[in-house]
Amino acid sequence: MRELAYYNGDYGEAADMRVPFTDRAAFFGDGVYDATYCVDRGIFALSEHIDRLYRSADAVGIAPPMGKIELAAEVRRLVKLPDSPNLFVYIQFTRGSGTRSHAWRGGKSNLWIYLYPKDVTPPCAALKAITVADNRYGLCGVKTINLLPNVLASELAADRGCDEAIFIKDGRVTECAHSNISILKDGVLYTAPADGNILAGISRAHLISVCESLDIPCRYIAMPKDALKDADEVIITSSGVPCSPCAEIDGDRVGGRARGKIEALQDLLYRQYELVCAMDRRI
Amino acid sequence: MRELAYYNGDYGEAADMRVPFTDRAAFFGDGVYDATYCVDRGIFALSEHIDRLYRSADAVGIAPPMGKIELAAEVRRLVKLPDSPNLFVYIQFTRGSGTRSHAWRGGKSNLWIYLYPKDVTPPCAALKAITVADNRYGLCGVKTINLLPNVLASELAADRGCDEAIFIKDGRVTECAHSNISILKDGVLYTAPADGNILAGISRAHLISVCESLDIPCRYIAMPKDALKDADEVIITSSGVPCSPCAEIDGDRVGGRARGKIEALQDLLYRQYELVCAMDRRI
Repeated sequence: MRELAYYNGDYGEAADMRVPFTDRAAFFGDGVYDATYCVDRGIFALSEHIDRLYRSADAVGIAPPMGKIELAAEVRRLVKLPDSPNLFVYIQFTRGSGTRSHAWRGGKSNLWIYLYPKDVTPPCAALKAITVADNRYGLCGVKTINLLPNVLASELAADRGCDEAIFIKDGRVTECAHSNISILKDGVLYTAPADGNILAGISRAHLISVCESLDIPCRYIAMPKDALKDADEVIITSSGVPCSPCAEIDGDRVGGRARGKIEALQDLLYRQYELVCAMDRRI
Repeated sequence: MRELAYYNGDYGEAADMRVPFTDRAAFFGDGVYDATYCVDRGIFALSEHIDRLYRSADAVGIAPPMGKIELAAEVRRLVKLPDSPNLFVYIQFTRGSGTRSHAWRGGKSNLWIYLYPKDVTPPCAALKAITVADNRYGLCGVKTINLLPNVLASELAADRGCDEAIFIKDGRVTECAHSNISILKDGVLYTAPADGNILAGISRAHLISVCESLDIPCRYIAMPKDALKDADEVIITSSGVPCSPCAEIDGDRVGGRARGKIEALQDLLYRQYELVCAMDRRI
């Protein structure tokens, strides 16, 4: 099997898989998700991602379709099945299925799991980004599937040969279309506070924790846009991007002034990543 | 057939209908829609709704799956099939299907049509509403399926025994979770401008046009929240609600001070509605 699609207990090749027309994902984007990676059949930080998924579900009033332990076991069972041992691991709850109606109380939530081949970004990668206006809604601290602004920003980035789009809200940096963003400046890590304008990224938390172990102080502020070009390094993080410098923003070169610190952070983060995946393989 | 679900040419009973797991509706809410009503097999203002659907698609870069004339013919063919002659008529384009990726260029858009029994709200209805903070995104002028804030607001309204939730942004009235809102005050109709903070409702446009024919001047301003309780009448409009007074907001009685004007507006709007549906039956 190349890509595994799972829906409420049934699964098969994603390209052949069918789901109910009336799943509320289709009409309202009425769902939450979380995602991580599987490296050589070991899943990165599955419990942390599942914990966040349940917090997201709680934030929008979706009752999880099963318990956390049962879900983790189901995901661990499924990642053994695709041909590729390296996978993107995507888990989604939608509120339910039924006749379209904004307000809705009927039935049970649905569980979607999607596993497809994808590799973690290697440490050598230097990313390119554009900046775009952050026109997203007030639920950015919750990982929902209302992602059209993220799609449009990502398409604009791709059109310009870039990997990411950095959202700017009222002149301040929030996060990227599918990553968090931080900077190193004069030996300090600056990153936006998890105040609802960004998703509190799990890889962002790992970056902060590794900074602390390297005696790099962390400050939580929404940086002005200009801070990006003045930064010693701009760092992109997500589950697939443990710690990548951003080398270009809006066509201008940025960062490259604290390469030693980037390498030290990457060294710890990638080793931690491997270790976490290796431990998961033993479960 | 009770509820008809159509997807890219296939159709059947909605409860049994299946769609691809990888439709981008599921992971990003990456689609646009429009909706109207069918009364005794005659569709209300189908061309206007289809025109707006194509404008929505254009605004987010979705290539329509077919031309407008072909789509109108398909919808008119389908509304003959369900058991009920009175239907909610829902049409949706999603960007396509394929492996999940924010930026995406592959393949063809998908056409969803959903028809299910629903009656237009009668003129006698007096609605109840709550107010909620408008935390929606910057694309409120486009009819997309990123509707989670609308779902949450509608669920809160339903919890409180109400029909609608009125969004308040920076102290001003924008629109409702699934309707537009206007007020009558001292013989003038006030309604929020179509400046991107609201959807330019087709029933709102009809209300404005009928006001003009009754010599009721229209002013386009984002009213302060207090204007709702000071209004002579608060009017809710949508395709299923041609012109309904709102009688209660946040538990307080509102309006009821220009009943003659409401009745004159309703008289014209409901007759126009019937006439438009009757003309559609002949196509």
